[in-house]
Amino acid sequence: MPKVTVTVTLKPALLDAQGRTIQEALHSLGYTDVANVRVGKVIELETANPADVTAMCEKLLANPVMESYKIEVDG
Amino acid sequence: MPKVTVTVTLKPALLDAQGRTIQEALHSLGYTDVANVRVGKVIELETANPADVTAMCEKLLANPVMESYKIEVDG
Repeated sequence: MPKVTVTVTLKPALLDAQGRTIQEALHSLGYTDVANVRVGKVIELETANPADVTAMCEKLLANPVMESYKIEVDG
Repeated sequence: MPKVTVTVTLKPALLDAQGRTIQEALHSLGYTDVANVRVGKVIELETANPADVTAMCEKLLANPVMESYKIEVDG
């Protein structure tokens, strides 16, 4: 079955609190040049029907109000 | 500054409880052919020193016992 990778990220306009926390932690470790840290989810799955994945995202995998998603189909 | 994308996933041998939960939810929505759902983190950041990102992963971004990570540098 084809493998599909869905990357779900917060919409750019939204404050990424998790990203901000990681950025501050990296700064405290001495990586002071790090900027614009943003965190998202990556969901890998296998399906016989990759065309269904958009509907899966809309219904379950992503929150359409706050998140955007990218779908990559391998093979 | 170059943009770096780090993808952190559970090592394949480990049970992915979150992935299993999503898989069952997708099955209940009728997508019964979906299999092998695995969930990871994607961390995007900008840094003047992409060579530091491996150390950032080892120290903070990934748990070396349970997780593996992939680093992609853009531009």
